[in-house]
Amino acid sequence: MRSFIDVPEDSHFPIQNLPFGVFTRSDVHGPRIGVAIGDNVLDLALLEEMGLLDLPELKQTFPFKSETLNAFMGLGRPSWRAVRARLQDLLSDDGDPALRENAELRENALVPQSAVTMHLPMEIGDYTDFYASRQHATNVGTMFRGADNALMPNWLHLPVGYHGRASSVVVSGTDIIRPTGQTRPNDDEPPVYGPTRLLDMELELGAVVGTGNPLGSSITIEKAGEHIFGFVLLNDWSARDIQKWEYVPLGPFLGKNFASSISPWVVPYDALVPFRVDGEPQTPEVGNPEPLPYLRQQEPRCLNLELDVLLETTKMREDGMQPHPISKSNTRYLYWSPEQQLAHHTVNGCNMRPGDLLGSGTISGDTPDSYGSLLELTWRGSNPLAMPFGEERKFLQDGDRLVMTGYAQGDGFRVGFGEVEGKVLPANM
Amino acid sequence: MRSFIDVPEDSHFPIQNLPFGVFTRSDVHGPRIGVAIGDNVLDLALLEEMGLLDLPELKQTFPFKSETLNAFMGLGRPSWRAVRARLQDLLSDDGDPALRENAELRENALVPQSAVTMHLPMEIGDYTDFYASRQHATNVGTMFRGADNALMPNWLHLPVGYHGRASSVVVSGTDIIRPTGQTRPNDDEPPVYGPTRLLDMELELGAVVGTGNPLGSSITIEKAGEHIFGFVLLNDWSARDIQKWEYVPLGPFLGKNFASSISPWVVPYDALVPFRVDGEPQTPEVGNPEPLPYLRQQEPRCLNLELDVLLETTKMREDGMQPHPISKSNTRYLYWSPEQQLAHHTVNGCNMRPGDLLGSGTISGDTPDSYGSLLELTWRGSNPLAMPFGEERKFLQDGDRLVMTGYAQGDGFRVGFGEVEGKVLPANM
Repeated sequence: MRSFIDVPEDSHFPIQNLPFGVFTRSDVHGPRIGVAIGDNVLDLALLEEMGLLDLPELKQTFPFKSETLNAFMGLGRPSWRAVRARLQDLLSDDGDPALRENAELRENALVPQSAVTMHLPMEIGDYTDFYASRQHATNVGTMFRGADNALMPNWLHLPVGYHGRASSVVVSGTDIIRPTGQTRPNDDEPPVYGPTRLLDMELELGAVVGTGNPLGSSITIEKAGEHIFGFVLLNDWSARDIQKWEYVPLGPFLGKNFASSISPWVVPYDALVPFRVDGEPQTPEVGNPEPLPYLRQQEPRCLNLELDVLLETTKMREDGMQPHPISKSNTRYLYWSPEQQLAHHTVNGCNMRPGDLLGSGTISGDTPDSYGSLLELTWRGSNPLAMPFGEERKFLQDGDRLVMTGYAQGDGFRVGFGEVEGKVLPANM
Repeated sequence: MRSFIDVPEDSHFPIQNLPFGVFTRSDVHGPRIGVAIGDNVLDLALLEEMGLLDLPELKQTFPFKSETLNAFMGLGRPSWRAVRARLQDLLSDDGDPALRENAELRENALVPQSAVTMHLPMEIGDYTDFYASRQHATNVGTMFRGADNALMPNWLHLPVGYHGRASSVVVSGTDIIRPTGQTRPNDDEPPVYGPTRLLDMELELGAVVGTGNPLGSSITIEKAGEHIFGFVLLNDWSARDIQKWEYVPLGPFLGKNFASSISPWVVPYDALVPFRVDGEPQTPEVGNPEPLPYLRQQEPRCLNLELDVLLETTKMREDGMQPHPISKSNTRYLYWSPEQQLAHHTVNGCNMRPGDLLGSGTISGDTPDSYGSLLELTWRGSNPLAMPFGEERKFLQDGDRLVMTGYAQGDGFRVGFGEVEGKVLPANM
């Protein structure tokens, strides 16, 4: 399948992707929904207005002139698929010519991405963060409890997760103010107040719930995929010193809830199905317990997404340098899948709503250059990262800009997320 | 101050209270906002329509014909106070006669509480649960870690809290389906799947945020009270066996997020100001560390609210018996105040929004009959509660109905919450 629009081979947004986002264009009032195609955004509110998205699966709703994707997500998978198929038809080089052969419409409906402002794509009712990378859990456990007690007894039996803060999820590009709070640098001294000294990032994949379930019901592992609208890249900013002092016994709180950044584009679930791969086997043959039946998933369970983390310091920016790669990971390292997370999350009757966000937890691979946090990359600061110009980094400094990007490599095309990025501003004191 | 409406001395809803709620009346379409007065609800949407709430502080918004209190809460404290004063004037026996002397309007605007359906009073963007009762934290810590390590080192320095689930907060009267999930009854055996065997309640006070703060800013301890719209009673249902297996290291998750019930009436912050009392001193003189300045609050810091928990079994209900008292507590036992919780929650720049809910954590007093959970009242089931007809309870059984109620005692009147109640239904399997 090819689009009549020119899409470079290394673009994240070919016709095979068509991720959804919410944007504002300078020439028309109000936010609207679009899909990314090459360097452009296709304005779905405009197509809707022109009657080009008049599909029975949309049930006579008009969901694209909207500030969020929630209404469209709530319509369910048959609607998502019908719209996706229709857009591929309109954008292909041999499908419906209604867009392809109408120069005026093309001019109006295709807007350069550089000319639009992207917004948070959905209203997030609840944000849950999991802890699904075995290497990450092992690394952090080793640092905090020693190698012998690194992985807790429950970890291989269920996807460990906790509730995050929905209000502070922000779209890529939002500046991150260094959080202030209470820490205890010295166990023999009282705690102190001040800006975090250990500001970190966490490389994660976020699953976006499309359709939910009523309170008291569950989503089975077999049906879980049908409820997931798509995926975003997620940077779960963390203040390690605040987290360390506060987190026992009820879990991370202020060390996390000052900000979590997501990519503006939600890549459809269906666009990533071709990139599924088997994960680490969940079978006794390799020493892992078989999950209880409600968590038992048919393989393939993982996604093969190449992930890159890059850091740009103030000095690099002033010198016009490109961001410097500091980690290269892959979602195939995740032990627990989004489908397993969703089945687990609802097994007790907890209700999901359209727009809910499930973070994977930090994604760390098997080798030190594939770790998904500075805590692990620098092993608690004991092994600083060498940066250009002789700079080094243990944790993030004011002015640093952190960039995460990721894609699946197809045959001659890439299905990707673009970027999730944010710059650290000094603390408000 | 007295109302022209007859309010019995033991009613929770005298003119000194006027709690806000959202209700549907059978004769008019759609939810609307009202205040409780005696056995009635005063329909504010109707008063608004009649022009009787035409106050400059409402800034020409019309917030009372609404499904939630959020818009009204977002207007801020001067608006809440102006409306409260206006309603007291309209309801008093010597104020504005517009309601008092208009029989037809009284007939229309005052609806018996028994004839209305109450709804969740606000849309909750985020729900945070604290752990602010020293006795509760000590009891639970003693059971799980022994008396010597009962209170964690951070507990006296900051209000420990964690994020709860907003989607499953329900209004009083909603049935609670027994949750199913993964537990590990025997440490030497693999975990098992099934309905919780240790279903519990948690007696809490909930603070409802009225006006929030932008991301990156903080609410100071001095200003915190101005941001709190009011209070609800909260039952944070818990599945102790699910919680125990899942909660290390990231905190409670499925053991909590299947349901949290709140009272339908939000008691205004100002209605409880006369019932403030000093709490346990936060000073080295009594062996407690002085909090860091951002948490240092002028006394009085606590509320003197009498709290009662009652349990009704299926057999009692069939025999027409009243619910049986199982605990008597008081919010004065809380160590950390809602104002301190709000200052702490935002010290890192975390943003609050109108309608956010802050739970106090289980409120347990100094004596075993004042504990706020069955876990503590029965000391993990080792000391069952004696119930009428020779029944006993370690944890909640299917068919049990749990009732919490609370009030402040004034001179000849009570300012109360009514009830938060819910019945346990069998698990869906």
